[in-house]
Amino acid sequence: MDKTLLHTINSPADLKELSLDKLLQLTQELRNFIINAVATKEGHLGASLGVAELTIALHHVFDTPNDLLVWDVGHQAYGHKILTGRRDVFDTNRILGGISGFPKMEESIYDAFGTGHSSTAISAVLGMAMASRLKGNLNKQHIAVVGDASIASGMAFEALNHAGVSNTNLLVILNDNAIGIDPSVGALKNYFTKVSLDGAPDSDNIFEALNFKYTGPVDGHNLAEIISTLKSLKSIEGPKLLHLITKKGKGLKQAEENQVKYHAPGKFNAITGELHPKSETKLPPKFQDVFGLTLVELANKNNDIIGITPAMPTGSSLKYMMEAFPERAFDVGIAEQHAVTLAAGMATQGLAVFCNIYSTFLQRAYDQVIHDVCLQKLPVIFCIDRAGVVGEDGATHHGIFDIAFLRCIPNIIILAPRNEEELRNMLFTAQLALDTPLAIRYPRGRGRELNWEKPFKKIPFYEGELLKQGSKIAILSVGTMAYQVGDAIKLLDTESQNLIAHYDIRVIKPLDNKALLAIFQKFNTIITIEDGIKAGGFGSYLLEFASEYHLKNEITILGFSDIFPQQGSIDELYEIAGLSPIKISEVILEKLV
Amino acid sequence: MDKTLLHTINSPADLKELSLDKLLQLTQELRNFIINAVATKEGHLGASLGVAELTIALHHVFDTPNDLLVWDVGHQAYGHKILTGRRDVFDTNRILGGISGFPKMEESIYDAFGTGHSSTAISAVLGMAMASRLKGNLNKQHIAVVGDASIASGMAFEALNHAGVSNTNLLVILNDNAIGIDPSVGALKNYFTKVSLDGAPDSDNIFEALNFKYTGPVDGHNLAEIISTLKSLKSIEGPKLLHLITKKGKGLKQAEENQVKYHAPGKFNAITGELHPKSETKLPPKFQDVFGLTLVELANKNNDIIGITPAMPTGSSLKYMMEAFPERAFDVGIAEQHAVTLAAGMATQGLAVFCNIYSTFLQRAYDQVIHDVCLQKLPVIFCIDRAGVVGEDGATHHGIFDIAFLRCIPNIIILAPRNEEELRNMLFTAQLALDTPLAIRYPRGRGRELNWEKPFKKIPFYEGELLKQGSKIAILSVGTMAYQVGDAIKLLDTESQNLIAHYDIRVIKPLDNKALLAIFQKFNTIITIEDGIKAGGFGSYLLEFASEYHLKNEITILGFSDIFPQQGSIDELYEIAGLSPIKISEVILEKLV
Repeated sequence: MDKTLLHTINSPADLKELSLDKLLQLTQELRNFIINAVATKEGHLGASLGVAELTIALHHVFDTPNDLLVWDVGHQAYGHKILTGRRDVFDTNRILGGISGFPKMEESIYDAFGTGHSSTAISAVLGMAMASRLKGNLNKQHIAVVGDASIASGMAFEALNHAGVSNTNLLVILNDNAIGIDPSVGALKNYFTKVSLDGAPDSDNIFEALNFKYTGPVDGHNLAEIISTLKSLKSIEGPKLLHLITKKGKGLKQAEENQVKYHAPGKFNAITGELHPKSETKLPPKFQDVFGLTLVELANKNNDIIGITPAMPTGSSLKYMMEAFPERAFDVGIAEQHAVTLAAGMATQGLAVFCNIYSTFLQRAYDQVIHDVCLQKLPVIFCIDRAGVVGEDGATHHGIFDIAFLRCIPNIIILAPRNEEELRNMLFTAQLALDTPLAIRYPRGRGRELNWEKPFKKIPFYEGELLKQGSKIAILSVGTMAYQVGDAIKLLDTESQNLIAHYDIRVIKPLDNKALLAIFQKFNTIITIEDGIKAGGFGSYLLEFASEYHLKNEITILGFSDIFPQQGSIDELYEIAGLSPIKISEVILEKLV
Repeated sequence: MDKTLLHTINSPADLKELSLDKLLQLTQELRNFIINAVATKEGHLGASLGVAELTIALHHVFDTPNDLLVWDVGHQAYGHKILTGRRDVFDTNRILGGISGFPKMEESIYDAFGTGHSSTAISAVLGMAMASRLKGNLNKQHIAVVGDASIASGMAFEALNHAGVSNTNLLVILNDNAIGIDPSVGALKNYFTKVSLDGAPDSDNIFEALNFKYTGPVDGHNLAEIISTLKSLKSIEGPKLLHLITKKGKGLKQAEENQVKYHAPGKFNAITGELHPKSETKLPPKFQDVFGLTLVELANKNNDIIGITPAMPTGSSLKYMMEAFPERAFDVGIAEQHAVTLAAGMATQGLAVFCNIYSTFLQRAYDQVIHDVCLQKLPVIFCIDRAGVVGEDGATHHGIFDIAFLRCIPNIIILAPRNEEELRNMLFTAQLALDTPLAIRYPRGRGRELNWEKPFKKIPFYEGELLKQGSKIAILSVGTMAYQVGDAIKLLDTESQNLIAHYDIRVIKPLDNKALLAIFQKFNTIITIEDGIKAGGFGSYLLEFASEYHLKNEITILGFSDIFPQQGSIDELYEIAGLSPIKISEVILEKLV
């Protein structure tokens, strides 16, 4: 392994003088390195394989890090990381304390901007290019590599619209592979496909209308052509767009043929590409599948049910409804703002709209939730997947702010199911007769209940549930934190266990004042636990309640502190935040003293 | 007055059968009505004058409210309101308890969707059109009227991209007047101008690339042509775009010639169009002008200062810097997401970026604040104008959520100046050497200090200020609430006054723990007051602090309750929310008992 050319490349300087032959060899080695790394350590595969030639060409032609290069949605940047000094630590990718799966400024001077969410690169790079112009750095180059799914997002369009009149040294490389995580959608995608098939741009194409100089389409796997094109673009002034056609997963047959599965395939055989067989043990379902499969069941009986996802049909499992009811379930692309207001528009016509958005991406549609849904009290049902920490994707993807940013909005009900069955029943109840906006937040990954497909039961949206009686301390848990608390209680001796009462609060907002008053009367010591940021979260809400009712109980709030949690396994992140069973049991013991 | 044709139109049904001559007469009368109403009662003028013909044509041709019509950014909808049963209550426009200055669903069945923020209409109408298709209402029409400034916003683009492949009965009318509140900007605007001048669309224009059937450009003041065009568009299936060229302010010479000033001109002479002369009394400055003028002063000495506004150069007063330093101050259009990440990109290059966004519009860029600025700890300076309630614009425009949605984000400092001088010094200090994101929130309108242009003073970003000594109760006020508290204290007798201590907390986040511990030790009773929503706000933060330190003081939180405040004067809204001096003094007296 150490004899490869790739192992002589410790920074982009080492590939500046290589011949085309050597660069071609390097491309192959880079692909193999990525395949081997992801096969054993997991991570994102297809995107980085698709840009192997581009990655090498960029670092060969441009003077990084002096020239500024930003990879939109960082999961295409593995090759970039490997070529910029992180080859030998790449086996720590995405694990606690290791390198990030996304570009990260504090990790390397070659990562000009952190990118985890999509469609930010053009804005960031335009800012850099405007700064360079202002400082008189007229030869500095500024490059954003953007996928065709990302460029259809409104934010990218806003940046193009500004860049077109900016007179900056800006190069946008459109990595057109017709797929994000799932296949790209929308009119723009069809337009790109047409341009690609025609083999030449229209005389006045959409980018030229926005005042970009358009080059392409160019074969993204022809290294020589990419290099010569980039070289010639260097000398062209003003905003430029290079349209590159690539294949996601390029170089691994299975990844090319099954691009959705091989976006982040888990472990697989690096030689054959075969995925490791799934364990035979029956596991509890993923929450996303409880959502996806239950929605199909409900949609079978209720014709008013609609499903919406912004570009996450697979990740949200809305794909099941999209297959079963294609006329009632929609992937609207990376367009969270549109997704929410579209849902609002449908809700005005009496439809029961389930708008599924990851917690971290709902941040993209905050104004629409406030202004278009909650202010008008439209009964949109937000299914907020990936709430809480998400693990290896790290700080850019954790969904820890939703409780705080939603509970300050009037009119919205916020629910957190503690398990699969509860989520199922919440979905059932939500479609019956809702008269106000609703948010149901649930985490990434699997629950704990194998037997979840029970008959539907209406679930009250105004009260929680007593899970365990006790005499001295009341623990109020949010969502799946109930299981962390349950495990924590099991760590105690029987006598201590008897002192602990445990409530699943279920309804984060509005608070069940009557039940809470009874709890506050019975227990002087109260502990709240939530998988969200403490600032402004559920515990904070409870403090407001106590203040309003002049209650002087001792309240301890567990949750994430005022720092961004980093990457790691979910259990590791819980441990760090004090949310592991052991850490929770320690807090309980302190309070019992 | 009662003899006019307009006074016979009580609903759109009354204009269905009118001849073109009568409709032309009605157009003139509608314009006069709007001019007279706004001249005496204030409100938005230019936008509705520009669409008088379109408004009448739409209600003449389409079967509203069965056909669904949404006006993007409602301030162009005055004519629509007047023709749909609200003529006789139009003198209550924008006042407490009156009709809204924007379309509002609960006000009229003719208002198919509430629109206060821009660029939402296409998403909402597409949702309605998809619902109609699903329900088999194949003849129902769905119309969004969108300005050229609004359509450049990313959200509108997302909707177009989806609509293009939606196969719905959707008509987007592009009201192209080359201006929003300020003149439109960006490459798309240049493109529209080119299309307008050419008098005919390109063979494959930008909307056709997105799969819309394009018609236009059409003269938006030629009623006959608009009517015949709309009639023929009714029978065309699928997504359609009508490009209409209008003049903002049409029909009032001054409004046509000075479109920015006559967007919402205040009171004026309805005959001559002359604005009422400004009072001779010297008033304290508007906070926006303190921002705008101070920034120019600072930019004179610090070449690294940049100013950014998303489409509010006049409203934010960034226009002063745009005039003085056009190469360093930018209006990026209605593009809040882009504005924030652009600022982040500039900040990576060491620039001191002042990104000015109204509180209510910052909701549009929440993810960018979290993901692109705060997570990367980039020292962008957010100047959050229109924080708190804004008065007559009402629920869609109040800026009451920012404390709650910002203070849950790690790394950000949040400041609230109590007056002009403090704002000035905060701006001065911010550009000196910031190493983390900063938000400075200040309200709409004028402060109280005439003499504000004093020499700059560095102001600490970690502590507040004791404004008044006292012995029994501590009041902690946020920003300009200091003046409400000051006035409240003046209402008390001297003995009571001596019991009240008053602190301007100045730094909302992070809390000054040391100072707070001293306050909590000295005063058992603490009152907080903020011009934001109580849920998750500053008072809530103080409760978290008290809980963490096991402090049992009696804390009373004043602010906005968990409902959307409506329209009215700011003083009226303070009174309703319990934030008027009298209401505050009543709370103080209760606590003194």
